[in-house]
Amino acid sequence: MAWTVTTEHLERLAIGAGILGTGGGGNPYLGKLIARKFLREGAQIQVVSLDEVPDDAIVISVGGMGSPTVAVERLRRADESLNAMRALEHHIGRKFTHIIPSEIGGSNSTIPMIVAAQAGIPVIDGDGQGRAFPELQMETYLIYGVSPAPAALCDHFGHATVFDGIGDGKTLERYARAVTIQMGGAAGYAYPVMTGAEVRRTAIPNTLSLAIAVGDAVLSARTEHVSPVQAVCDVTGGRQIFSGKVIDVERRMVGGFARGLVKLEGSGDNASQTLALDFQNENLIARRETGEVLAVVPDLICLIDIDSGDPLTTEIVRYGMRASVIGIPAPPELRTPQALAVVGPAAFGYPDVIYSPLPGTYGGEGGWARVV
Amino acid sequence: MAWTVTTEHLERLAIGAGILGTGGGGNPYLGKLIARKFLREGAQIQVVSLDEVPDDAIVISVGGMGSPTVAVERLRRADESLNAMRALEHHIGRKFTHIIPSEIGGSNSTIPMIVAAQAGIPVIDGDGQGRAFPELQMETYLIYGVSPAPAALCDHFGHATVFDGIGDGKTLERYARAVTIQMGGAAGYAYPVMTGAEVRRTAIPNTLSLAIAVGDAVLSARTEHVSPVQAVCDVTGGRQIFSGKVIDVERRMVGGFARGLVKLEGSGDNASQTLALDFQNENLIARRETGEVLAVVPDLICLIDIDSGDPLTTEIVRYGMRASVIGIPAPPELRTPQALAVVGPAAFGYPDVIYSPLPGTYGGEGGWARVV
Repeated sequence: MAWTVTTEHLERLAIGAGILGTGGGGNPYLGKLIARKFLREGAQIQVVSLDEVPDDAIVISVGGMGSPTVAVERLRRADESLNAMRALEHHIGRKFTHIIPSEIGGSNSTIPMIVAAQAGIPVIDGDGQGRAFPELQMETYLIYGVSPAPAALCDHFGHATVFDGIGDGKTLERYARAVTIQMGGAAGYAYPVMTGAEVRRTAIPNTLSLAIAVGDAVLSARTEHVSPVQAVCDVTGGRQIFSGKVIDVERRMVGGFARGLVKLEGSGDNASQTLALDFQNENLIARRETGEVLAVVPDLICLIDIDSGDPLTTEIVRYGMRASVIGIPAPPELRTPQALAVVGPAAFGYPDVIYSPLPGTYGGEGGWARVV
Repeated sequence: MAWTVTTEHLERLAIGAGILGTGGGGNPYLGKLIARKFLREGAQIQVVSLDEVPDDAIVISVGGMGSPTVAVERLRRADESLNAMRALEHHIGRKFTHIIPSEIGGSNSTIPMIVAAQAGIPVIDGDGQGRAFPELQMETYLIYGVSPAPAALCDHFGHATVFDGIGDGKTLERYARAVTIQMGGAAGYAYPVMTGAEVRRTAIPNTLSLAIAVGDAVLSARTEHVSPVQAVCDVTGGRQIFSGKVIDVERRMVGGFARGLVKLEGSGDNASQTLALDFQNENLIARRETGEVLAVVPDLICLIDIDSGDPLTTEIVRYGMRASVIGIPAPPELRTPQALAVVGPAAFGYPDVIYSPLPGTYGGEGGWARVV
C-alpha cells in the first residue's frame, strides 16, 4: 500500500533511524528539518512497498557518504544527493522512476525523502542494510549481485564525479572515499542503478516502516512514562545487553571515517562491570573487559539515552551520558555466508571473532507493521 | 603543414621529450615502443599545426597522470587514455576531432600519439606546457581560461571516473590525484575539452616539432662524435648551468608524487662546487650550496647524460652518473604574471624565491623548425 509521508512520520523516523543507525549513518536531525521544510512548502513524498515496484522501474539508491562528524559540523546545501542523481541520469541517458535508501540508519533514511520531494518520484519502503554500515560495498544490493557502477558523488559546490566500469564494490568504495575526503569529508551519492526486478530481489523490505515504528515506540513510551528501552526492544526484536554511564570516548578521523571507542561503566544488573564499543562510524563490537563479546556486526549494537530513548550517535556521545546498549538481531539477508563475508566481524578487522548471532528476529513479531 | 609520424620521429621524440620533461613527465621509452607497434601494424598518425585546426574542432588533451616511478614499474595496457577519452565522449555526447598533448615533456608526448593511432584522429603540434609539470592546473589551457571540467580518468582495469561541474583546476587536481592514487598511482586522463578556437588561443605552438628536433640534435651529435650538450643548447635556446657527478639521490613517494633531491659534485668549470636539484616529479630549482639559485620553475632544468645526451629522469637518475644540467628559458606563455601565479616558484613551495628568467628564447633561433 502506498502512503504519503507526514511531518509526524519524519519526527518518528529521525528517532527510529537514529537508533537503527547503530551509532552512525549520520545524524538524522538535519535531514528531518530539511525534509519537513519541503513538506511545508507543499511537496509530496509518496512511499511504495517493494511489491508495488514494477520490473522495469529504474531505481536509484541515494544518500550521504563521509564521516558523521563532518556532516553535523558542515551543514548540507540539501541538493548534493539530488545532483549526484542528476549526474547519473545524464550518464545513463535515462530518468529514474523510484528512489530507495541504501541504509535505513541515520541521515541516510531522510536523504532519500528529500531527493524524492525534489524530484517528485516515490521512495520505496526498504533499504540495503536494515541498519547503517560505514562502507559502500556493505549493502545487500551489491552482496546479491547488483553492479556497483555507474555511481556518482556530488559535493556542496556542485562538483560531480561519475564512476563507471567498476565491477567490485570495494574498489568503488576506495575511489569514492578518496574523492569524498577531497570533497571535505562529506558528499551526496547516487548508486547503484537497479531495475525494479533487481531491487525486489536484493532489498531488505519494510525498513522505512520499521524505523518509523521504532521512533513511534520511543515517543509513545515518553508519553506513557514507561521505559523507552523496553519499547525499542519490543518493536525491533532486540534486547538490552548492557546499561550504564559513558566513562570514556575516543574519537578520531582516520581515512575519512570517525573511528574510536566508547566505554561504559555498568549500573543496575551490570554494576561494577565495564563495556567497550569499538566503532567505525557505526558500532562494531560490544565487549566486556574480560574480552567476552556480547554482540558483533552485522547484529545491531544501538546506544540510546536510558531515559529519553534518544539515539546516542558516534558524533554526539560523550562522558557522563546514561545509556542502554541494545543488541538487535541482524536481518536474515545479512546473516547468509555471502553477506557475512562482506559485513561480518572479519570484514571489519576482527578475524578472530566468530559471529554468534543474537537470538530473536529483526523487527520482532512484526507488530510495528501496524504503526505507519 | 600536416605530416605523418614515422618510427624515426618516435625515436627522436623519446629523447627530446625526455629532455624537455625536466626530469619528469614520465619515461617516454615505453610510450615509444607502444606507438611504434601501432605504426608497424599499419596505423597512421597525422600531425597538424595549430593554424590548421578549424574553430569548431572538438579538441581533447590526453596523457598519463601519476608518479613516473609507478609508470615505469607497472606496465600500461596502452588503452587507459583512450578509455578516458571515450568516457568523456560518452559524457559530452560528441566525438573528438583532434588530440593535443597537455605536456610535451616525457611520456605525455607519446601517449597522444598512441591515442591518435587508436582513434584515427590527428594530433596537434603543440601542448599546454612546453615542458612537463606535476599538477593538472599547470597548463596554459587552464591558465588562459579553458574550463578544467569535464575531465576523465581511466585505469588499467577499465575503471573510469568522470569529473564535472568543477571550475577550478586545483580542485580537479585534488580530486583526480586522490583517484589516481587509488588507481595504484598511475592513470590515463582526458581533459580539458576545447574548441579549435580555444586551443589556438591557449596552446604553446610547435612543441612536438621542437621535441623531435631536440632528439635529432642528440642523435646527430652522437653520430658526429660531438658534445650532445652543446647540440641540445643550440636547438632549445638553453645553456649549461652545471656539470658533474651525481653524488646523492633522495626519492620518496609523497601524496602520489615522486619528490626528492638530486645532488651533483662539480667537474671541469664547476670543480669543488656542488649543486642541488629539488624535484616534484619534475626538477623545480637548481641551487648551489651557497643557496644561490641558478634556475627555477617555470624555466626548464634538464639533467642529461654528459656523454650520450640521454635524459636522466627522476626515476632513473642514480649515484655516479655524469650529468650536465641545462637551463632552458620557459616559453613566453609561462612567463606572464597570470602564468607565474600558477607555475612560478611560490606555487611550488618556494615563496621566497624571486623568479629571475634565464636569458634567451625557448626554442632558440627556431632552427629546429627545419628538422621534422
